[in-house]
Parts: sequence; structure tokens; C-alpha cells
Amino acid sequence: MSQNQEVVLLRQPETRPVAADFELRDAEMPMLGPGDLLLETLFLSLDPYMGTAIKGKHLSGGVRPGDVMPGETIARVVESLHEAYEPGDLVQTRGGWRRFARATVQSVQKLTPGGVPVSAYLGVLGMPGLTAWAGTVRLAQPLPGQCFVVSAASGAVGSAAGQIARNMGARVVGIAGSAEKCAYVRDRFGFDACVDYKQSDWREALAAACPDGIDAYFDNVGGTILEAVLPRLALGARIVLCGMMQQYVSATPLPGPALGPIIGKRATMKGLVVYDHQDQLPAWRRIGAEWIRDGKLHFKEERVAGLESAPAALERLMAGGNFGKVVVQVTPG
Amino acid sequence: MSQNQEVVLLRQPETRPVAADFELRDAEMPMLGPGDLLLETLFLSLDPYMGTAIKGKHLSGGVRPGDVMPGETIARVVESLHEAYEPGDLVQTRGGWRRFARATVQSVQKLTPGGVPVSAYLGVLGMPGLTAWAGTVRLAQPLPGQCFVVSAASGAVGSAAGQIARNMGARVVGIAGSAEKCAYVRDRFGFDACVDYKQSDWREALAAACPDGIDAYFDNVGGTILEAVLPRLALGARIVLCGMMQQYVSATPLPGPALGPIIGKRATMKGLVVYDHQDQLPAWRRIGAEWIRDGKLHFKEERVAGLESAPAALERLMAGGNFGKVVVQVTPG
Repeated sequence: MSQNQEVVLLRQPETRPVAADFELRDAEMPMLGPGDLLLETLFLSLDPYMGTAIKGKHLSGGVRPGDVMPGETIARVVESLHEAYEPGDLVQTRGGWRRFARATVQSVQKLTPGGVPVSAYLGVLGMPGLTAWAGTVRLAQPLPGQCFVVSAASGAVGSAAGQIARNMGARVVGIAGSAEKCAYVRDRFGFDACVDYKQSDWREALAAACPDGIDAYFDNVGGTILEAVLPRLALGARIVLCGMMQQYVSATPLPGPALGPIIGKRATMKGLVVYDHQDQLPAWRRIGAEWIRDGKLHFKEERVAGLESAPAALERLMAGGNFGKVVVQVTPG
Repeated sequence: MSQNQEVVLLRQPETRPVAADFELRDAEMPMLGPGDLLLETLFLSLDPYMGTAIKGKHLSGGVRPGDVMPGETIARVVESLHEAYEPGDLVQTRGGWRRFARATVQSVQKLTPGGVPVSAYLGVLGMPGLTAWAGTVRLAQPLPGQCFVVSAASGAVGSAAGQIARNMGARVVGIAGSAEKCAYVRDRFGFDACVDYKQSDWREALAAACPDGIDAYFDNVGGTILEAVLPRLALGARIVLCGMMQQYVSATPLPGPALGPIIGKRATMKGLVVYDHQDQLPAWRRIGAEWIRDGKLHFKEERVAGLESAPAALERLMAGGNFGKVVVQVTPG
């Protein structure tokens, strides 16, 4: 049987994690108890929340030095001591940064991909996609013709949120960090416009793209981007606070934006935590898969090969260097 | 007939207004057109929003140098060219800082006090009271047993909001700026607790008063007070942004608080503008007057005599030196 491997956190970073904060090491093969499954990881999801988790501060529970890194995985059943599973079955679980993992049947979900690439269940049809779905349909609630703005628009959550809003009839404007990303957001994801926040005139470009103000803002970054959006709100605007990339990589809490426009525009700001919306996962997977098959929902994956590549890939993700949902293909083929 | 007088704004202050920014001057008696009323001002309301209006920035429309100061008034009809009004009728209107004013019947509301002091219609049963009512029952929505916190708790809006929440069954904690104000908030307004934010340990005192977190926060001041409240939010908390006293007296927009707790606590922050809630005024006046008669709603007025006293009273109000709703008694008796 193959050798097991895992990645542990060596130290909690002050700001952004770097690859050297982690160590790949050999590990024992898991011992199964009655009813357990032995899983071989196919794909591991890397997500921005991990940057907070390894500082010990995330809702999902902190990670301490010496811990194996947690994370969402797609895995194949290698050995099953439970009658409902057999070798070869595909499951989704929080298997962590490991090649082989032991799991109870309560902690896995069987997958039947149905014409959609299996890794999509970590991205557009997984937690990031559910985040986009819940934040858009439950909190931002764009109406047809309204202006919906989303930051980190080329990322897993942002690209899905914008396409969901567009499929609801909204006019959709993205904010992203390069001309290449903006072109992709417009051409591939079909946004009406996309603004590159690294250009000095991006605030004017955002204003021009939203001439009647911003009715809904899906915020994945916080900080200076949120600060620039608030003065452009339309009356009755909704702001969904979903992620704070600028915060995750800062050693201390950053001050927030001036909140005067919240009063003036009778706006509503809501905090989004995807764990509250698990009840929506079946509905989202049904409509999301249908949209993917119909060409109404696209996604972009940045795939890296091998568990040993995960630390550097997380470093790049937390520095904003990725382009699309980051997935580690742990087992080739 | 008496001489008319009015107060004009001489210059727009950078930060807090001072009495010398205004001038009292003699004025012509108004000329009536067909159907008009001639009103003699009895009471003039002074409100914190005026500090922003005279900087030219408020939703109610800015005030420019040379303009007569606007403001809510209670007045007596002196002369009526309309069949629905006769001399001696009491009305409420936006008469401004004038002894005599011309009004159309569309711009006034007839008052029948019904056992409540007439000046209350500028305060607890007027705009500040309606602000408290709408912000509490429509936006903050405290449930019985929940912890409701309000800042500027001895003020017109804050004292009413806290009492409304208490009458809805909430546990109510005020934040105010002196031991004297806090004692009044507890003893007269019947709050469960009140914290003096000028004490160095006030954050700890707030935490102790809200051991299970803050379910609803009615914010009348913004700035550092809001910043101290956010980390104490309970899950699903509602924050009503109503006023920003710290902002009104600042020359430039202040940064806001770090917004991380909004996500972590799935909180909702809403902007409140009382003009959106005029439909609730009859309901509030009915229940508010009933509560006043039943001793379940108290209010505190700081009354100053004579139009000439208004500038200094506004200066004191904007410096936080008032204690209770500030009303100018323009006409003696």
C-alpha cells in the first residue's frame, strides 16, 4: 500500500503565510474502526479563510502549530467497513491536507457528479459557490436591472456571485486586480463591466460603470475597496460582508470605512457566514449544475499537482497571486 | 402688532457651531396670501442634525450663510385666511427660527395635545420620538429578554428608544456622558443599567452589564463608542446607525470601526433616516401619549427662554452640554 503523507502547520504567521510555515511529512496509514472508511484524497481545496484559521482566529476553529492543516477534499473510498459504501465511491469531506484519511460515514457526503467535473464540488458547487449563492439570493437580493457589484470578481466566490446576480437579471460589475482578470471576468463570466483596482483612476471607472449608484455590493475584501464603494451606494443598498482579504493578511484589525453613507442611503450591511446556509446546498447544487450544463455558469480553476505543492499555492493565494479557484490535485489521474 | 425677529446663519462652521455663527435680527412681518396662516412661534426644537445642516451637508437640505435657520416649531394661529383654522389653534410646522411665520395649511399639522405638554410634540412625541420608535420597532427589533444598548441615552432619541425597548420586554443598557446623566437614565427612565463612557473602565462596565452580549445597539454617536460595542455583539445582532455626533462635529469624515464582528456575529447594520417613517407618526403618538399618561414613558426637557437664546443653546447642544431635549420657548406664557 502507498505511503501516507500530511502537511502540518509549523508556526502561526503574523500576517501572510509563506510556504515555510508548513511541513510535508510522512505519516502512518490510518487505522479503521468498525463502520469506518479509508479515503484517498483526489482534490484538496485551498481557500482564503485558511489565512485566518492558521492565525488561530477563524470560526471554523483555529489551527495550532503541529496540527495537520484542515481543508475540504474530494476523495475516493479505498476500503469500506460500512455497507453503504464500496471502494471506488466518490465522497466529499473535510479530509485535510493528507493523502489518506480515515472517515466515519457521518462525516462524508457521497458524490454523483452528473456531467460536471468532480473538482467543481470544491469550488463553484461547493463551499465557495454556496457562499456566493446564499450571499446573493438571501442577503444582497438584487432585483432585475439593479446594479450589483462584487469584489475579488475573478475568484471562486466573486465569479459565482456575479453570474448568479446576472442570471437574476441584475447589471453586474466586478472589481478585480489586473487587466487580465478583468478581461476574463467580462468575456468568460459575462459581467457587464469590470474595474481594475490597481489602476489609479479605478474609483472613477467604478462610478462610470454604476451611473445610478450601487444597489448591492458583495464584499470579499473589505478595507480600501469597501471604503471606495460606500460613497457610491444607491438608496436602500445592501452590502454583504463576506470576506476581508485585506484583514486576513494584516497583523492587527484594520479600521473600517466612514459609515455616514449607511445612514444617508438607508443601507443595510449584513455579515455572511456560509455555515448558516448549509440548508441551501442541495438547491444550489441542483440549479448550479443545470446552469453549468447550459453554459450559464462558468468557473475557473487553478490546479496544482501534489500535496507538496499546497503550501506554496496557499502562499500565492493569500498574496492575491491566484487566478480562479485553487485546487490541489493530490492523487494523479 | 409685535415686531418680527429671526435668526440667520452668518457663516458655516468647520466643526462645532458657536453662538457667534448666528445673528438675531429684526424682520418684516410676513405678508399673507389667500388661504395662508400667520403663526406665532411658541416653541422651537433644537436638534443635533442642525450641526450637519449648517455645514451644508444634511439630507434635510443645507443651510447657507444669510439663510434663516430652519427648525421644527409649535405655533399658535394669529390670523387665518383658511376656513379650517381660527386664531388660537395650535399647529406643528417647520417654522424655523422666527417669532412670526407665514404658513400654508399644507405645511402645518393641527395639534390637540390631549393631556400631554404641548412641547412634547417637538420631542418625545415629535421627530426625536418617532426616530426612537421607528429605529427600535422596525430596525433594532429587540425581543423580550434580549440586551438592547443605546448611546446618548439621556438624550431625546436615546431615552425614548430605551424606554420603548424596555416596554417591549428587553433588558436595556444606556451609554451616557456623566454620572449624573447615568443616574437619571436608571432612576427616571428606568433602564436596567447605564455606563458612563467618560470613565476609563467603561468598556469593562459595558461588558459586565451585557454578560450574554449585545443583541441590539441603537447608535446615536458613532465613532469610538460604536467601535467599543462591536466586539461585544451577540450572534445575529442588529445595529441601527441613527446619528453620528462624533462625526457632526468633525471637519473631515472619521474612519469607522473594524467590521470583522459584523461577519463573525452575522450581524446586520442598518441606516435610519426618520423621514422614511412618517407613516408611523400617528401610531407612535397614540401609544406614546398613552405611555406618558400611564407613567411608562418619561422625558426630560431643557427649556431656554427667548429666540435670542437659541444660538448659545445650539452651541451647548453640539458640545454635548445639554441634558434632555432642548426646546426654546420663543413666546412667554
